[in-house]
Amino acid sequence: MAMLFKQMTVCGVGLIGGSLAMLARRHKLVGAIVGFGRTQANLDLALERKLVNSATRDAAEAARGAELVVLAVPIVTMPALLAAMVPHLPPEAVVTDVGSVKGWVVRELEPLLGPRMALVAAHPVAGKETTGAAAADPELFVDRRVIVTPSARTTPSALAKVEELWRATGARIERMEPEEHDQILARSSHLPQLAASALAAALAEERIGGRLVSEFGAGGLRDTTRLAMSSAEMWRDICLTNRDAILSALALYRGALNDFERLIAEADGAGLEAAFARGRRMRERLK
Amino acid sequence: MAMLFKQMTVCGVGLIGGSLAMLARRHKLVGAIVGFGRTQANLDLALERKLVNSATRDAAEAARGAELVVLAVPIVTMPALLAAMVPHLPPEAVVTDVGSVKGWVVRELEPLLGPRMALVAAHPVAGKETTGAAAADPELFVDRRVIVTPSARTTPSALAKVEELWRATGARIERMEPEEHDQILARSSHLPQLAASALAAALAEERIGGRLVSEFGAGGLRDTTRLAMSSAEMWRDICLTNRDAILSALALYRGALNDFERLIAEADGAGLEAAFARGRRMRERLK
Repeated sequence: MAMLFKQMTVCGVGLIGGSLAMLARRHKLVGAIVGFGRTQANLDLALERKLVNSATRDAAEAARGAELVVLAVPIVTMPALLAAMVPHLPPEAVVTDVGSVKGWVVRELEPLLGPRMALVAAHPVAGKETTGAAAADPELFVDRRVIVTPSARTTPSALAKVEELWRATGARIERMEPEEHDQILARSSHLPQLAASALAAALAEERIGGRLVSEFGAGGLRDTTRLAMSSAEMWRDICLTNRDAILSALALYRGALNDFERLIAEADGAGLEAAFARGRRMRERLK
Repeated sequence: MAMLFKQMTVCGVGLIGGSLAMLARRHKLVGAIVGFGRTQANLDLALERKLVNSATRDAAEAARGAELVVLAVPIVTMPALLAAMVPHLPPEAVVTDVGSVKGWVVRELEPLLGPRMALVAAHPVAGKETTGAAAADPELFVDRRVIVTPSARTTPSALAKVEELWRATGARIERMEPEEHDQILARSSHLPQLAASALAAALAEERIGGRLVSEFGAGGLRDTTRLAMSSAEMWRDICLTNRDAILSALALYRGALNDFERLIAEADGAGLEAAFARGRRMRERLK
């Protein structure tokens, strides 16, 4: 494959940013890779693992020469970081991100761009419980989806190059509107997180007859609350930036819970069996 | 260990009943083991795996000589089965069960017992996705809880013998009132099931812009809905037999979901971070 960008600056050399850097280097899709981050220890590790060619904690330095900027930092910190970088970026720099929310990112980042810069907002739907440059993994994106959400400031050439970069990771690319992405992910990703965290929070201190009920769960409780271990800060930000779609998703969930509650209260055996079977069919489709 | 019962009849030689039979035999805690079930194929497999010494599909035959009856059949079928067996049981037979609900079982089974029989209701909190005699596993109960719920018709000697049988499986025995068990398990087991099944049901046919949202979930959606694959019939029965406690558990969950919803609607970042952190702390305690 031909080189797409002479220099790529990855802001946040963690699980996602670090894995993307590793693959871009391996496939020679970029010339130099600059790592930007807040903590020197993680940047040192990124250098040691050869995820990046150089590293800096200075936004202006990170910006210089970056034909592509990958924002892989917490969503709410993206606007301030990009604002600090823009004056130092090449005039035709391409900016992309890996955030879990797209409408907010597009709305906040587009106005910050220089007149000839382009934005290609994207969301690789992949994750693990691990973080940092140590977690970078060349298999992370294989057969996963990367949702690209073209917007007013996306140029055809920037779109083509960013998609080619992602394609090299083994991911499947899918394009959609930012708002459509946010409505879908509110249901398929943000809602499961809230269902898990609310269950864990509900049982956190719950006692019956002096016994902590959470000690009486088996594998099922562990599976259903596994997501509750995710970063509280990250999920706070997703809730704040995808508020309306998440509230719609919660209303959908409340409806399904209310259905079960009514069937239980009415001792409707046939209705209950049908409701559990409906959930089972959905889950079996997920493989 | 000394022999506890000359004959144990296991009704339902599946995951739980089959594993218990295997261990009782291995530790020579019972003389003969009779398997009772509805399907000959499963009984043949139980014989082949030497989980039982003999097998029958006839309740009267299964009852004859059984000093211990283990009811490991669906909860709602227990009363009719026990009623059919009682006339043929030894006058001092001990009856135990492995159902996930205890108050209902005690209420329904006690009146069926002969005057000198005893009931020791119990719930091994263990499970796997597999079923049938093929799933019997000598490690199933190791370090798991078996909750024993003594009731009016539990005699000290029956309690001691059933607990000794369970102790030999490697399980930890815990005694509590049937109603306390049902309140605890409604929260630690039945609620996670409903949270998972309602999430799966809510997303079953949900589409945004023509796209099936469940296809956009990653590992988190799979974890959180894994329980939805459980048997619809079994969960129907648990809901029907533990109704009030489950409705209380659902109310608790609704409260936690409402907290998250309010924090999101109010864009309360600090409150959201605290709520997610609360869930995270609970989950980390589960290991």
